[in-house]
Amino acid sequence: MGSSLLSGDAKEAFRICLVQMRCSADSEENIAAAKGALAASSANDVDLCVLPELFSNRYVGQFADIEDRKGGLPDHKMLLAEFREASKASDVAVALPYAEAVDAKRSYNSLALIDKDGAVRASYRKIHIPDAEGYREDLYFESGDLGYVVARLGDVNVGLGICWDQWFPEVSRSLALGGAELLIYPSAIGSELIQPGFDSRPEWELVMRAQAIMNRVFIAAVNRVGQEERIDFYGGSFVADPWGEVIRRASTASPEIVFADLDLSRIRDARSFFGFLDTRQPRTYGALTNERR
Amino acid sequence: MGSSLLSGDAKEAFRICLVQMRCSADSEENIAAAKGALAASSANDVDLCVLPELFSNRYVGQFADIEDRKGGLPDHKMLLAEFREASKASDVAVALPYAEAVDAKRSYNSLALIDKDGAVRASYRKIHIPDAEGYREDLYFESGDLGYVVARLGDVNVGLGICWDQWFPEVSRSLALGGAELLIYPSAIGSELIQPGFDSRPEWELVMRAQAIMNRVFIAAVNRVGQEERIDFYGGSFVADPWGEVIRRASTASPEIVFADLDLSRIRDARSFFGFLDTRQPRTYGALTNERR
Repeated sequence: MGSSLLSGDAKEAFRICLVQMRCSADSEENIAAAKGALAASSANDVDLCVLPELFSNRYVGQFADIEDRKGGLPDHKMLLAEFREASKASDVAVALPYAEAVDAKRSYNSLALIDKDGAVRASYRKIHIPDAEGYREDLYFESGDLGYVVARLGDVNVGLGICWDQWFPEVSRSLALGGAELLIYPSAIGSELIQPGFDSRPEWELVMRAQAIMNRVFIAAVNRVGQEERIDFYGGSFVADPWGEVIRRASTASPEIVFADLDLSRIRDARSFFGFLDTRQPRTYGALTNERR
Repeated sequence: MGSSLLSGDAKEAFRICLVQMRCSADSEENIAAAKGALAASSANDVDLCVLPELFSNRYVGQFADIEDRKGGLPDHKMLLAEFREASKASDVAVALPYAEAVDAKRSYNSLALIDKDGAVRASYRKIHIPDAEGYREDLYFESGDLGYVVARLGDVNVGLGICWDQWFPEVSRSLALGGAELLIYPSAIGSELIQPGFDSRPEWELVMRAQAIMNRVFIAAVNRVGQEERIDFYGGSFVADPWGEVIRRASTASPEIVFADLDLSRIRDARSFFGFLDTRQPRTYGALTNERR
């Protein structure tokens, strides 16, 4: 994996590491790569290391055969225990995505925020479940039942989202209202089986930049990269600042570890000069919570 | 005023005209310019002509002297009657922004959608009221009490918003859920008194492009342009399509009439291939409607 340069001014900043991975069919390889990234993060004084959605395996949504559901998914309790240990050993917090099989009938696409002491600070279960060809997560996962989760990590409030959630302004707004300063979106997005020539990456990035602006928060999206069985994942993991500027972006072709220093004072500056949260009119937003006809 | 070329393929399209105006201190001049744009729209088979926010006068939010409140604002009933007549005469629908003084104490920043037969199809009162230096609309206007308004114009559902509303994803979402296919945002935005070097135009456009994507609708923003007493308005009126692409953009320096043909089938295409409205999870959005602490 390559590695981006750190910015010169690291003082008072929160340092994150985006681990853009090529995910092998061998989950042991993926777990080893993630641990390697944790070790590199440790050597670079990273505060939070973010892994891609469901990083331990090939992306399950591309397989429309529900019989594959159990095949190859590692036991999530073992995975969690392993990374709690690794997190403590490396003294780096980690955002760990995993498939959570609650029982034989019920699974979630989940994310644990493990602090650098190995404690699980918060857990989130993905709420927005895609159902398009190639991304048939509806065959595998229920919509999450834990609501939107914001957790304190050191001096920073981190809001948790996963992939398809990133397209919904309701998610980023709910997390910002919950006090989040940094939103993280582990992702798995690439080519579209229905329109092979279509590249969603420009709008994928643009939509999250806009959400960073509208909420005046940092947003980090961490994608997988490379060809798997049916999908060619496009990488392009990035961090946007509260003005919607992309301050770091990974390659669209290769695995890469990207470090970024977040100056959290930029949130206060942006909100006091050109913010939006104070002039919202919640009394008028009732239509948003209505179930559709 | 200059004039952009029409696209070649006008079949089945809805043609709009964005009237980017330099607004004079003489309201008669502004009204005459708007009527000129209506006549040009008529000659070009336009379906809907959109004027900038509060186009009949210099932008009131730049004057922090509440005593000016009544000064120079034309009687809105006369203005409406005049444009209902003009609309009928030109056989073009018009989105007419105006200051609506309901009584001595209560005014709204309003928008009437007048159909080509001169009938008022719908009225909207701006809900999000800016209060930043240079944009002190809070001194003049109440937050609107008519909710979010979608009205049918010919074969198209038009959603009404005004300027500051455009920064709030709750507005575009509410309008899209109400069936809107085209959102119009008459605007008045330019330089910032607090940070004179700051240019909000890139994020202004980006945020609306993202909202066009997230809702798979067309969005048209129509700004004023040029230096007034305290604000230098930056024009840049544009139309974005349901993929967030800007299909027409006006100059940032001069008045301009921009025609654009909207192919509404692109909404269906975008929503069926890569839409978002069907996988929303309204049960989880309760935080959006909570009044803040």
